[in-house]
Amino acid sequence: MKIIRKAKEMQSLVSRIRRTRKKIGFVPTMGALHRGHLELVSSANKNSDFTVVSIFVNPVQFGPGEDYGSYPRKAGKDIALLKSCGVDALFLPQVKEMYPQGFSTYVVPEGKFVETLCGAKRPRHFRGVDTVVAKLFNIVKPDIAFFGQKDAQQCAVIKRLVRDLNFDIDIRIVPTVREKDGLAMSSRNLRLLPRQRKNAAGIYRSLMAAKKMMKSGVTKTEKIRETIKKMITEWGGEIDYISFVNPETMEDLTTAVPPVMIAVAVRVGRVRLIDNIAVN
Amino acid sequence: MKIIRKAKEMQSLVSRIRRTRKKIGFVPTMGALHRGHLELVSSANKNSDFTVVSIFVNPVQFGPGEDYGSYPRKAGKDIALLKSCGVDALFLPQVKEMYPQGFSTYVVPEGKFVETLCGAKRPRHFRGVDTVVAKLFNIVKPDIAFFGQKDAQQCAVIKRLVRDLNFDIDIRIVPTVREKDGLAMSSRNLRLLPRQRKNAAGIYRSLMAAKKMMKSGVTKTEKIRETIKKMITEWGGEIDYISFVNPETMEDLTTAVPPVMIAVAVRVGRVRLIDNIAVN
Repeated sequence: MKIIRKAKEMQSLVSRIRRTRKKIGFVPTMGALHRGHLELVSSANKNSDFTVVSIFVNPVQFGPGEDYGSYPRKAGKDIALLKSCGVDALFLPQVKEMYPQGFSTYVVPEGKFVETLCGAKRPRHFRGVDTVVAKLFNIVKPDIAFFGQKDAQQCAVIKRLVRDLNFDIDIRIVPTVREKDGLAMSSRNLRLLPRQRKNAAGIYRSLMAAKKMMKSGVTKTEKIRETIKKMITEWGGEIDYISFVNPETMEDLTTAVPPVMIAVAVRVGRVRLIDNIAVN
Repeated sequence: MKIIRKAKEMQSLVSRIRRTRKKIGFVPTMGALHRGHLELVSSANKNSDFTVVSIFVNPVQFGPGEDYGSYPRKAGKDIALLKSCGVDALFLPQVKEMYPQGFSTYVVPEGKFVETLCGAKRPRHFRGVDTVVAKLFNIVKPDIAFFGQKDAQQCAVIKRLVRDLNFDIDIRIVPTVREKDGLAMSSRNLRLLPRQRKNAAGIYRSLMAAKKMMKSGVTKTEKIRETIKKMITEWGGEIDYISFVNPETMEDLTTAVPPVMIAVAVRVGRVRLIDNIAVN
């Protein structure tokens, strides 16, 4: 596995690869890799001829007071893991390589679908996501890029980015990988204390309960929201949001009639976790 | 010359071309082509193996009350001209192809270099420019793209776009082509009445006078600005701005010590014209 730290070097590598008509698969990550990421890598390996992974904790997508400083960083372990998974190249830039002095061009998603869910709580978050993803797309020049369904709104924003700015890239969304107890895999799980980790499985349980209510005919979002809220707050989780949205447009829904995505953000101590389920 | 109206079709054409290792040269325009554009095409022909020109009057870079509606459109004449110049492909999309319903991702330049000159007078102009240029770059996938020096601030903004978002594209700036009397070639010249057209040559004369003052040792921007202003207003031109900027950063300069770019925007009747000269 080649480890590349400079954008120009990555571009010449992938340009050479493309000339051989190999298909490039790309998995952008912020590192601290877990089985969710490895599922993305596995999809890339299956669907392309040359797999590139990037690890970059993107400062621009973190707001003031968010966890940029404390976000887990495990480069050594990540590299070993990626080598063992048959990744062809790792792009591992420093912040000053991605945002050199004078940097001043941002990719900004606008409109309703970034004003709900995480976009409402983290106002410039998706501006940071779109900016870094546009950069990475131009650096890695993939044919296909893989993202995890756990970050549902991010997936919608990136699909929109690709359509709006005409990136000639196929976006594949890979189902959320979960721990045995149902907790969605996330690098931030590493920051949970043992007790918090155990409690956090309650997020998924509450989503399952919500799904069950919908299957049994409940359509009032308030009723379902109350159930989720009760189930999460009883073990000390703090609700950031519980939203019912159209899975395509991310627009808020007033009734829980399928297709619905129920998306939640929950604070467990100082860690903010997100999860979602679709009911079709 | 192939005429292509759909982004996807353009992308498959250039992908095929790239696989043959041909170098793609790109000249984005808003049509109503003049000798300035043809100079760009000629540079593209010389420096690449496959020349693509686009014609698209980009609504997003026009502000309310600006000349989007009255901007000259001459598709038939333009097509004939490009055919005669050995252009390989023309990208000629409609507005709804470039900005379909739901479009909501913009590329936004920030910071000082878009707050001066035209950026100060046309607040969202360069957001529109960066957005359409990013789209066109992803559609045409050029190795080299050509822009005219007349639009000096646009050149600076686009160089910044390419650096910041890591477009793997070489940007070439081609010197301004002028009419015999010195007026910088511009599609907007078509909108001048005969008398205005004649007067407008005074813009360049005033820039030449300014250059002469600098060569003779004048460094006070106010003194030079007064001369330009006098020379332009005496035939009825209305000053939008007269600026002394660093040619690289577009930052305002307080003294006229080379390297300086003197950039002006002048209203001649209802037509706004820009021009600039560098003094090194």
